[in-house]
Amino acid sequence: MSMKWTSALLLIQLSCYLSSGSCGKVLVWPTEFSHWMNIKTILDELVQRGHEVTVLAYSPSILPGPNNPSALKFEICPTSLTETEFEDSVAQLVKRWSDIPKDTFWPHFLQVQEMMWTYGDMIRQFCKDVASNKKLMKKLQESRFDVVLADAISPCGELLAELLKIPFVYSLRFSPGYTIEKHGGGFLLPPSYVPVVMSEFSDQMGFMERVKNMIYMIYFDFWFQPWDMKKWDQFYSEFLGRPTTVFETMAKAEIWLIRNYWDFQFPHPLLPNVEFVGGLHCKPAKPLPKEMEEFVQSSGENGIVVFSLGSMVSNMSEERANVVASALAKIPQKVRYNQNILITVVNILSSKTRAFITHGGANGIYEAIYHGIPMVGVPLFADQLDNIAHMKAKGAAVSLDFNTMSSTDLFNALKTVINDPLYKENAMKLSSIHHDQPVKPLDRAVFWIEFVMRHKGAKHLRVAAYDLTWFQYHSLDVIGFLLACVATVIFIITKCLFCVWKFVRTEKKRK
Amino acid sequence: MSMKWTSALLLIQLSCYLSSGSCGKVLVWPTEFSHWMNIKTILDELVQRGHEVTVLAYSPSILPGPNNPSALKFEICPTSLTETEFEDSVAQLVKRWSDIPKDTFWPHFLQVQEMMWTYGDMIRQFCKDVASNKKLMKKLQESRFDVVLADAISPCGELLAELLKIPFVYSLRFSPGYTIEKHGGGFLLPPSYVPVVMSEFSDQMGFMERVKNMIYMIYFDFWFQPWDMKKWDQFYSEFLGRPTTVFETMAKAEIWLIRNYWDFQFPHPLLPNVEFVGGLHCKPAKPLPKEMEEFVQSSGENGIVVFSLGSMVSNMSEERANVVASALAKIPQKVRYNQNILITVVNILSSKTRAFITHGGANGIYEAIYHGIPMVGVPLFADQLDNIAHMKAKGAAVSLDFNTMSSTDLFNALKTVINDPLYKENAMKLSSIHHDQPVKPLDRAVFWIEFVMRHKGAKHLRVAAYDLTWFQYHSLDVIGFLLACVATVIFIITKCLFCVWKFVRTEKKRK
Repeated sequence: MSMKWTSALLLIQLSCYLSSGSCGKVLVWPTEFSHWMNIKTILDELVQRGHEVTVLAYSPSILPGPNNPSALKFEICPTSLTETEFEDSVAQLVKRWSDIPKDTFWPHFLQVQEMMWTYGDMIRQFCKDVASNKKLMKKLQESRFDVVLADAISPCGELLAELLKIPFVYSLRFSPGYTIEKHGGGFLLPPSYVPVVMSEFSDQMGFMERVKNMIYMIYFDFWFQPWDMKKWDQFYSEFLGRPTTVFETMAKAEIWLIRNYWDFQFPHPLLPNVEFVGGLHCKPAKPLPKEMEEFVQSSGENGIVVFSLGSMVSNMSEERANVVASALAKIPQKVRYNQNILITVVNILSSKTRAFITHGGANGIYEAIYHGIPMVGVPLFADQLDNIAHMKAKGAAVSLDFNTMSSTDLFNALKTVINDPLYKENAMKLSSIHHDQPVKPLDRAVFWIEFVMRHKGAKHLRVAAYDLTWFQYHSLDVIGFLLACVATVIFIITKCLFCVWKFVRTEKKRK
Repeated sequence: MSMKWTSALLLIQLSCYLSSGSCGKVLVWPTEFSHWMNIKTILDELVQRGHEVTVLAYSPSILPGPNNPSALKFEICPTSLTETEFEDSVAQLVKRWSDIPKDTFWPHFLQVQEMMWTYGDMIRQFCKDVASNKKLMKKLQESRFDVVLADAISPCGELLAELLKIPFVYSLRFSPGYTIEKHGGGFLLPPSYVPVVMSEFSDQMGFMERVKNMIYMIYFDFWFQPWDMKKWDQFYSEFLGRPTTVFETMAKAEIWLIRNYWDFQFPHPLLPNVEFVGGLHCKPAKPLPKEMEEFVQSSGENGIVVFSLGSMVSNMSEERANVVASALAKIPQKVRYNQNILITVVNILSSKTRAFITHGGANGIYEAIYHGIPMVGVPLFADQLDNIAHMKAKGAAVSLDFNTMSSTDLFNALKTVINDPLYKENAMKLSSIHHDQPVKPLDRAVFWIEFVMRHKGAKHLRVAAYDLTWFQYHSLDVIGFLLACVATVIFIITKCLFCVWKFVRTEKKRK
């Protein structure tokens, strides 16, 4: 009987719940770094549940290739880009972004835009190579995929889905200024209480902050473009054989899986086809390797402090390293420095960890939330400053400027988050919110991907806003019409009154 | 071993999942008719899970009293209202509402408002009787409830929660023109694609429909008041000892459990503290009583048609009854007429049912969606016309005017929904959407009530909009400030240019 139970449970876990009873086929448009790490968690779960997952990869790829043991299938697509071109471009992106001064908004975002365009141009080249490769497209067509999964920050997935005539699902962390969410996803984010992403504001804004937030919003809504839209729109129109835009194509997404949740993000309006699945990559800590376990245990009552700068920064200057080292030497906790490998952080953040010194990447912060660890943030670039600002507003982190902080600053910050019980309390509160959801984030993400495969879409969750032009959406035509009506009525009444007055005057004169 | 399994499962079902490990105490502000039927499903489930549920009831109550077998506790509150006063008022409400001509928008809603005010005045009297009853309030205080559950359409629950200093959760079907959702809940419902409730529009509106929808919205936003707000606001200010309004008090709700879902409602934006739990009262059909089962089976291939006018209408005129009877006599299906008792409908709507003739109450429509039965709608009043309009737009119903339809109209409508496979297909599509959710509606409703009890609220889901005034919310102060800045700059530049021009002219003249 015990055997029977086991096999029944196994059956439940492996069945894919598609209407046909068979498993589905998922096509993945790739993405990089922490984005990829996060999406891979979903893909691994899909494979676990019996689905077939195929990732389109650059031939000079940074993705785990066929030599890398993975249950995912990789379809290597020939491209004119060389490996060096690609890696140089990515390395440049990281370097340039970290070098942009953060305290100047306009120059900052002008440079961010320029960088994203350069990166986007490379993606577009690869996208063109794939979409115009007749042999490859025929092969993909014949594979009869059920759904395309893509990160909305790297366009092309939606184009392939349109060409292959299959539904697509997005995963997205965020886009600068929420441009993609708003123009592609139709999100409603009122500037009065939703701080523009990367503004570092919380949802409790004073008057001048709301003024700044409004200016940021206007800038992002009307001037900022995440990619060179003219080129992209032209490219999509060409391949789809009708005048269209990237955002119009993106708006066809069935589901948006946003890698965020209300333990991290400030609450804001959402749409029925948007699921907040932040922290889906977090898992209970596995037993540590023996050497690490001994290290953690040897820390005794004082516990340990974990230090990590994430997957994109591989080294720091000697001067900065010395500042960090001398601060860490002063605290009673043992310190673990993790370079580059997030996976290790996952396992170390345990009950023994007293604080987490982090660059503020979203994945790392979610690990800290998951385990309820207070943070010292040393954000470097991209969304990291904003992420740390969120944790600071929620009372679970102290923020420092990595490039200018002194050894004493770091020491004091560590002392604060370790010794002031409020930080631990707030971190634990976020943790309890994170763990207390009706369905775990990863299961929800997988559920909606499977839903789209089962029902060939999720049209019942799509707001009709997607079918409106921007002036219809904002009711500008209706308001214009109503104002015209009111003006006409006022005009007619005035005219009549004038006539009556004139008539009365003439009559009077005649008398 | 089998025994062990059973007891383990039992334990899971009975444990309340509160942080203390103990079960919670729920205080319920009552509501009427189908609203009560729906909320009672949640209450029964809470009791099933081990929580203690206390319903505040009028002494001359229409609620099941202590004599009525129920696991709910009823706290009978003395009130100055007599049973006759109450029942008369309700009967009048139903009668008057059904008599208002539906084709005239303005007179219709003026009368709806008047009716709601009369009903609201009665609720306020009862609310005053409870809140000023020191002995009762002391008893409630001492009972240490964890949460108040109320229907947002019947105010007072939020006042009691404030007085008792405990969090509260709303259940709500809808309010006319979404006034409560917007002013109390901060819902965002853009008039360009969200039809105003009771407008009978779908989300696919043409230009003139959008114009009408905008006018409706302006009317509801600025003129319509679901209750006599002046009296209510004064009453709340008095009892809370500070100047406040009903809507301000309502805005403190932790969670809004909306009795709707995207199988019924057109998708629109929502907030993180809003859960759509429509159809939570639906359950798989139980075996029918023998007499009924024989009736259903005897229908053979043709199946049956179920006819119900809901819980509020207890009889129809002889003339109308004849029209219905003569249409039903012509169809090959057997017919079941259910007067007054929704519960029976639940059980009859089965695979043998070919069509459901319904007045369009939300509960009945959800039964039809749950079982995938196409409908003939004969809406009478309140939201029924709008509900049927929704089902019609989704291709699962044909709509008729009950008061003017002929026998042939009904016969043709029945023939259409029974013989045109598209209606059955669409009804089944809605059914499959309804059943394919990560968590069942009832479980989600109970989860969030328990969440509020566990965490003493759900503040992390509250948008900061609740803390803003209406002009801050719409950024009017910010826009005003920015326009003033722009005007000042333009003024200064113009002034400077003018000075320069003047100077140049003077110089020229001098020469």
